[in-house]
Amino acid sequence: MKGAILTRAAVSIVDITHDLAPGDVHGGAWTLRRIWTRFPAGTVHVCVVDPTVGSDRRAIAACAADRWFVGPDNGLLGFLGHPSFGPLEIVRAHLLRPAPDVTVAPTFHGRDLFAPAAAALAARRAEEALAEPVTPASLEGLDLALPRRGPDGIAGTVVHVDRFGNLVTDIPIGWLAPEPRVRVGSTTLAGLSSSYADVPPGEPLVIRGSAGTLEVSVRDGRADETLGASRGDAVVAASRERRDGG
Amino acid sequence: MKGAILTRAAVSIVDITHDLAPGDVHGGAWTLRRIWTRFPAGTVHVCVVDPTVGSDRRAIAACAADRWFVGPDNGLLGFLGHPSFGPLEIVRAHLLRPAPDVTVAPTFHGRDLFAPAAAALAARRAEEALAEPVTPASLEGLDLALPRRGPDGIAGTVVHVDRFGNLVTDIPIGWLAPEPRVRVGSTTLAGLSSSYADVPPGEPLVIRGSAGTLEVSVRDGRADETLGASRGDAVVAASRERRDGG
Amino acid sequence: MKGAILTRAAVSIVDITHDLAPGDVHGGAWTLRRIWTRFPAGTVHVCVVDPTVGSDRRAIAACAADRWFVGPDNGLLGFLGHPSFGPLEIVRAHLLRPAPDVTVAPTFHGRDLFAPAAAALAARRAEEALAEPVTPASLEGLDLALPRRGPDGIAGTVVHVDRFGNLVTDIPIGWLAPEPRVRVGSTTLAGLSSSYADVPPGEPLVIRGSAGTLEVSVRDGRADETLGASRGDAVVAASRERRDGG
Repeated sequence: MKGAILTRAAVSIVDITHDLAPGDVHGGAWTLRRIWTRFPAGTVHVCVVDPTVGSDRRAIAACAADRWFVGPDNGLLGFLGHPSFGPLEIVRAHLLRPAPDVTVAPTFHGRDLFAPAAAALAARRAEEALAEPVTPASLEGLDLALPRRGPDGIAGTVVHVDRFGNLVTDIPIGWLAPEPRVRVGSTTLAGLSSSYADVPPGEPLVIRGSAGTLEVSVRDGRADETLGASRGDAVVAASRERRDGG
Repeated sequence: MKGAILTRAAVSIVDITHDLAPGDVHGGAWTLRRIWTRFPAGTVHVCVVDPTVGSDRRAIAACAADRWFVGPDNGLLGFLGHPSFGPLEIVRAHLLRPAPDVTVAPTFHGRDLFAPAAAALAARRAEEALAEPVTPASLEGLDLALPRRGPDGIAGTVVHVDRFGNLVTDIPIGWLAPEPRVRVGSTTLAGLSSSYADVPPGEPLVIRGSAGTLEVSVRDGRADETLGASRGDAVVAASRERRDGG
Repeated sequence: MKGAILTRAAVSIVDITHDLAPGDVHGGAWTLRRIWTRFPAGTVHVCVVDPTVGSDRRAIAACAADRWFVGPDNGLLGFLGHPSFGPLEIVRAHLLRPAPDVTVAPTFHGRDLFAPAAAALAARRAEEALAEPVTPASLEGLDLALPRRGPDGIAGTVVHVDRFGNLVTDIPIGWLAPEPRVRVGSTTLAGLSSSYADVPPGEPLVIRGSAGTLEVSVRDGRADETLGASRGDAVVAASRERRDGG
């Protein structure tokens, strides 16, 4: 893919992750959602988690927030418009135009379709990359549970376990009441720490994660192992007042 | 190695793979053969799979198809001229000239010898990198079995198992008769699929791989595990007519 | 982190390693020490091995040898001035100034503090990155055993096991007497080889490593497994004369 890009445009390429499980569209969508704001306007994000490559799923370029997102129409791109951390408006979307000089292998649209289109967009030759427009609302969505506020507090999900074993959730820090109580599995944690050093080594804590959401960590340890938790697990955050006062 | 390159030339560096087994010259040669066409003319490929580093094997820069290939003379570069996907002509080859300001560590020619030479070639200062010429025909070859056509069909080999478990073979798709029957181990598959979606999840299929050769995959699964296959295994592709009419 | 850098400066980014164990400050310090000389003057090294992120440990930019080193004050940077391979003088050091447009997450100073500062330094906008100066001598050190010469020879340590299983030690090659005898665990090796090919496949040898220190390897094998050695193990190098005559 990098060769296909650099053959067509003199750009800087950054690898976001190669550690997603094969076919993990949900993980890819969360990763994309977490990182896109960190790159400058004008960036082209090439998003290839593509278990249905070669089927009739569409190949799309979507424009949002002065960036292009290129990839399969399998939920990866549609998720960008999802009201999770506040919606991001997809202002236009197009089918991709295959490069005339490439024979597209049925198994490798990343290299043969998405990478050439991304290079053309990055080089401001959009007309090379874009075929007919499609309505942004027609993009496939993802069946992702969203964090929600209920009578017992905020119910969310562990959406990612990072390489340090931290449990990244989808609960925005801004939703938390003061002095929250957070439950993962059979463990309940009180309060929001401002630093790992707030607890002794080996102890769990709740902290504001790098994505702006609630994260459960263990100082100098792995929260996934200590708490027996993994991706998809439920997380409940209640305010102390609500719990105590009933 | 990247420091050694960037100290000498302002170039863009792309990592192809760091996942080869230590000393796997065959795997490196196939990888190089698969990817070089995807990079633009003028690219310098630095090829370091070098189990005999420090012996008297030669250090070489070979020029082919308007690219330079820099690495040890252990078969990696000689394989480029091999008639596997059609021969590639090596038009010239040279011994490398060590950079005058570097003490070459006996264990790390990648950093101390190949990287500085590649940087000089990329910066169009070839005279810094090249010592006396050697004849291309003198480059070491590799003892690689090639796919061949015989009375029972085409006999090839699994040359790579990718990270999705797909079995990449050396049998060019163009060699296949219509409606081929492909055998790997005790499994025989009929027909060439155009997409993973042609079969139900969990089922194996034969498809045109990204290298232009026959690939055996399992939809939403791993062909290496499902078929009990691994690199080096034999693959036989026969035409249906031949088998039926026999 | 790369997004934070590229948003602020058009620079070339090189990943040194992502393979350190979480929180392994010693490993990070050795890695930094081994590689910085290989990059050109003007390079900014962003060093994030940061188990105490969010505590009151300082965030620092240190200038040495016409390079900037940016990271936490936990020993990573202080180690640069350590007399291991010859001291490197840190000529100035500063606290970091957080970028005004960034909310610093308590768990991710790499992205929110170190990367923006490094970008400003690389773009020669140092005033954006640097707050008040601190004395270089005040930087935290590391409790690292150093190689030392004693009556029985040189006592050193395995400071790194590379991905080939080679045992990288901290004993400078220049310290060795001719015909050294090197002991790791219960294995004693005689002489310094100039190439892996000096011994038969499967046999261990002592060689000058890429860092300029003594390395123990096994030809076509893994020294860590063959010798049952791992990081932190003691290595003793004695001269033959001393042992025989002593």
